[in-house]
Amino acid sequence: MEKLFQYNRGKYDVIVIGAGHAGCESAFASARMGKKTLLLTISLDAIALLACNPNIGGTGKGHLVREVDALGGEIGRIIDKSVIQIKMLNTSKGPAVHSLRGQADKNLYQRVMKSTLEKQENLDLVQGEVVEIFVENNMVKGILTNTGAIYEADAIIIATGTYLRGRVFIGEINYESGPNGLFPANRLSYCLKDLGIKMRRFKTGTPARVHRDSLDFSKMEIQPGDEEIIPFSFMTESLDIEQVPCYLTYTNEETHKIIRDNISRSPMYAGEMEGVGPRYCPSIEDKVVRFAEKTSHQVFVEPEGLDTCEMYVQGMSTTFPEDVQIKMYKTVPGLENVKIMRTAYAIEYDCIDATQLKRSLEYKEIENLYFAGQINGTSGYEEAAAQGLVAGINAVRKLNGEDPLILDRSQAYIGVLIDDIVTKEIYDPYRMMTSRAEYRLTLRQDNADLRLTEIGYNIGLATKERYEKMINKKKEMEREIGRLKKKIITPNKEINEFCERIGTTPLKTPTSMYDFIKRPEITYDILKEIDDERPELTREARIQVEIEIKYEGYIAKQLKQIEQFKKLEGKKLSEDIDYSQIKGLRLEARQRLNSMKPESVGHASRIAGVSPADINVLLIYLEQQRRLNK
Amino acid sequence: MEKLFQYNRGKYDVIVIGAGHAGCESAFASARMGKKTLLLTISLDAIALLACNPNIGGTGKGHLVREVDALGGEIGRIIDKSVIQIKMLNTSKGPAVHSLRGQADKNLYQRVMKSTLEKQENLDLVQGEVVEIFVENNMVKGILTNTGAIYEADAIIIATGTYLRGRVFIGEINYESGPNGLFPANRLSYCLKDLGIKMRRFKTGTPARVHRDSLDFSKMEIQPGDEEIIPFSFMTESLDIEQVPCYLTYTNEETHKIIRDNISRSPMYAGEMEGVGPRYCPSIEDKVVRFAEKTSHQVFVEPEGLDTCEMYVQGMSTTFPEDVQIKMYKTVPGLENVKIMRTAYAIEYDCIDATQLKRSLEYKEIENLYFAGQINGTSGYEEAAAQGLVAGINAVRKLNGEDPLILDRSQAYIGVLIDDIVTKEIYDPYRMMTSRAEYRLTLRQDNADLRLTEIGYNIGLATKERYEKMINKKKEMEREIGRLKKKIITPNKEINEFCERIGTTPLKTPTSMYDFIKRPEITYDILKEIDDERPELTREARIQVEIEIKYEGYIAKQLKQIEQFKKLEGKKLSEDIDYSQIKGLRLEARQRLNSMKPESVGHASRIAGVSPADINVLLIYLEQQRRLNK
Repeated sequence: MEKLFQYNRGKYDVIVIGAGHAGCESAFASARMGKKTLLLTISLDAIALLACNPNIGGTGKGHLVREVDALGGEIGRIIDKSVIQIKMLNTSKGPAVHSLRGQADKNLYQRVMKSTLEKQENLDLVQGEVVEIFVENNMVKGILTNTGAIYEADAIIIATGTYLRGRVFIGEINYESGPNGLFPANRLSYCLKDLGIKMRRFKTGTPARVHRDSLDFSKMEIQPGDEEIIPFSFMTESLDIEQVPCYLTYTNEETHKIIRDNISRSPMYAGEMEGVGPRYCPSIEDKVVRFAEKTSHQVFVEPEGLDTCEMYVQGMSTTFPEDVQIKMYKTVPGLENVKIMRTAYAIEYDCIDATQLKRSLEYKEIENLYFAGQINGTSGYEEAAAQGLVAGINAVRKLNGEDPLILDRSQAYIGVLIDDIVTKEIYDPYRMMTSRAEYRLTLRQDNADLRLTEIGYNIGLATKERYEKMINKKKEMEREIGRLKKKIITPNKEINEFCERIGTTPLKTPTSMYDFIKRPEITYDILKEIDDERPELTREARIQVEIEIKYEGYIAKQLKQIEQFKKLEGKKLSEDIDYSQIKGLRLEARQRLNSMKPESVGHASRIAGVSPADINVLLIYLEQQRRLNK
Repeated sequence: MEKLFQYNRGKYDVIVIGAGHAGCESAFASARMGKKTLLLTISLDAIALLACNPNIGGTGKGHLVREVDALGGEIGRIIDKSVIQIKMLNTSKGPAVHSLRGQADKNLYQRVMKSTLEKQENLDLVQGEVVEIFVENNMVKGILTNTGAIYEADAIIIATGTYLRGRVFIGEINYESGPNGLFPANRLSYCLKDLGIKMRRFKTGTPARVHRDSLDFSKMEIQPGDEEIIPFSFMTESLDIEQVPCYLTYTNEETHKIIRDNISRSPMYAGEMEGVGPRYCPSIEDKVVRFAEKTSHQVFVEPEGLDTCEMYVQGMSTTFPEDVQIKMYKTVPGLENVKIMRTAYAIEYDCIDATQLKRSLEYKEIENLYFAGQINGTSGYEEAAAQGLVAGINAVRKLNGEDPLILDRSQAYIGVLIDDIVTKEIYDPYRMMTSRAEYRLTLRQDNADLRLTEIGYNIGLATKERYEKMINKKKEMEREIGRLKKKIITPNKEINEFCERIGTTPLKTPTSMYDFIKRPEITYDILKEIDDERPELTREARIQVEIEIKYEGYIAKQLKQIEQFKKLEGKKLSEDIDYSQIKGLRLEARQRLNSMKPESVGHASRIAGVSPADINVLLIYLEQQRRLNK
């Protein structure tokens, strides 16, 4: 590097490093909130690369997409423009766990994202590898690229995904590489270490891509898309696409025998990988070893796009060498003659310990340095996008002298995600799941706009059009709920014939439509028949009306819990507290609290090593302080 | 590599290494001619990458595309499916130099090619890096990939473009890399050296890609597409596209001053690059140094696709460091505020000395080992495609025990290209130009099908449909020429009014339509007015009729020259001749002839160091041998 001639290529308010799912959202948020923004990527051809599965959303993740969208983010609109199959998952269960999942045309997804970035005002998109972050007086100053360009910056967001010191493993072989045959970013990783940031090593894997014509779909179960297409974005009126099917097949004892016989050839088991893999998205050898009693695992075969014959084999990611991969895949019904086009591989990469971050995603020790996405130890495109959005918003707000946007655990899955990663020690790539949310009945995917669009609008990210659309939906829904409460049905022959026909007990006393809908056999839509004054509602409003009525009791209970939760969250803890001086706190709690510097008592209560007794001590301490200050 | 577990992944008739413009044609030819074919690429996302300019065709190169198409190749059809602007160049000159050029949507071009490959029968498309070629008894046996897969093969075609030991240069920095941020292929290069193949080092460069919205097109000249769109492929009936414009601007003294002031920072001039660059596609610093008297050079600004804002800056490829690039680009009118998205770079790569190849493109010393494309020291997508097609055809024909397809210099630009590279010492990347062809009046782009489709059909590559289309065109055209010869126009008032109107001298004696068309003021189309029996001809046939009539004399003369040429080409020279034993041959000629082993006296006459006197000695020698054999 001695010879590298350095020159100043300009100054930006915000620089985002990495144009994956996190970096793109950061860049949009920053640019749309009025900051001069630079988005740097190691390859302009790898923007928003769906490096693993070709889909967006899924359980828990679909919620994140809708929340990012509700706040004014981009991921929901991009998938709507590139989706080839869409499905609402878990519809047989309650609305809390309904989750949208869309299969993307991979290449189209990237093209739409790139083109949207290119057209974004205030945003420059440039190819380049960042090799150094400049910091002065614990504040970021700028960056240096491998071509010698210095860009000054007031804030920097690092969203490098799996590129930092990336190393690919396929059985016995391994080599330095980013995902999908792209160059890794090594120098930036060393620079982060030099800045004192604690790094860790995680890994992830991807299955083989196989040729469609080599598969026998007659041996698989077809998985069609939904008949009624619900788009991801609250701004997409409707989607008119031809749904492309996926297919389901299963591993069997023969598959598992090959895996067990060759386990020593998997670098994961041969002890050659130091990285820790995703618990909830394990390799097939991991599943076979950890769940030895299971004789079969699901395998979903999914198209990678409309104009390619490549298909993704979900459920069979692996670090086995290629010859074992082929043998193993061929045991799966429908894959007997499979032709592998891309070999499965695992990738090991540097990421940071996210407990070094504030809930704004700013690094605690260096001002205006933010981290977002897989580098924070998460997995998943949606988790990345959510963090990218929050980092982008908060980088801007700090430059504006405003408080950071902190969504708490009662407001959004985004809040749960960020609270989890900055609070809890994470030992494997973090993935969102509905079970991680305490208040999931209120944090539904269908009401993400009602929960968040006003916030997005107030911070200057969500557009007026989006805000008004949400307000209209809300009004429509409230008006209708009001009407249903007032509208009384009197028992008569016609009504009771209706009751009999749909299998609910006859009405005995006059009842409001509102209460009538609460019966399990009744839905808002069914009731239309006997509701002669019903207005034409949008689909979104209809869904809200039904859920709000049917789950009224549960929702009310949850809102009470949220009140309690908010109380503890509201008890703020100053960064200046020296916990070693608080009597009564156990030693472990003192250490953990001093190292984490929680933002509130609620936050403190979720730190591993801090007990309910410690929290009581803290509450007493706060009360004492309050009195002292009076 | 010690640990690499090797396993047999199957046997193919033909393996093609590299899926660029050469490799794709090889693979199609081989698979369509019935051979089980494997196409290996280092990245499935880099198939048919237009790594430099976003266009296909151009002077000389357009001829190659049409010839490849006429023989049953693919490049013409792919560009027709992805073209966004099409233009016939040089229309103010004679028909010999008319050349079609099309701007491609880069990403679409790749997608169409990949999808066509994926659907091709007999063809497997697999991602993998080849690290070794197995040879036994001077015959290829198979290959080894970096993941340990051994594929057996009867024939191998190497079409690795610029990937072999690729090294990228940007000013003071340089690093190992393939084109466009892809991994280089190093081990295969060492393997080829170990096989005794003479390697050389060439280089090429590409300009920056810039953001459309940062340009001021009002300061440039608009370059629209043609009003009448002529497709590349003889099989494309018509193209209905909206033509996207390109733009023309110029460098100036200020640009050139920056270049001269910084020349020591260009690695080309600092002596840091060993590779030799393309003479006819030089970097801007090369142009400014070599043509010091010129105060301005053309710069064409071309779109890279419909859904991207990236634009290509043709004419300004450079190896300058990034800071100089920016300064230099900003001096060009319309580029004052240019935003560079991708930095210009040069790439140095290993290629072979193609005089080690037969005209079939088989390597002389190892049977069934073929080379095609940029690895043979050529530049250009079209040159690559032409060689790929020929290598694919000949690999198949040899396996079938058939003679190779050798197109000679009188038959096709493809013949000129291959004859040149295997015969002449090439000192820089070879580019096709119409001036390289001796018989260019007969080797027109408009008659490529008439020249070559029958050959393509007879070898089993061109389809019956294509063959019949050509035959129909030929018949249509011959019938019409016959009719025009018989149709006599008698001088009368009406005719001579017509003559006066179009500015030609009045007719004095009865003349055939055929002879009348030869007048410079007359065209076949104009004459329609006074030709009441004219049949409806296809556009293609109309063009042929006019050219055949107008250039009859020149064409006849050229056909005589071709006859002479064919005589010398027909005098075959056996591979067994020991030229050192032929008395009268000069020493240099003996050495050159022994090393080149020309296939005919004609071929020998084009070898550097072989004089006309040596050719006379050879002719006498052949005559003596003929008598001896009697």
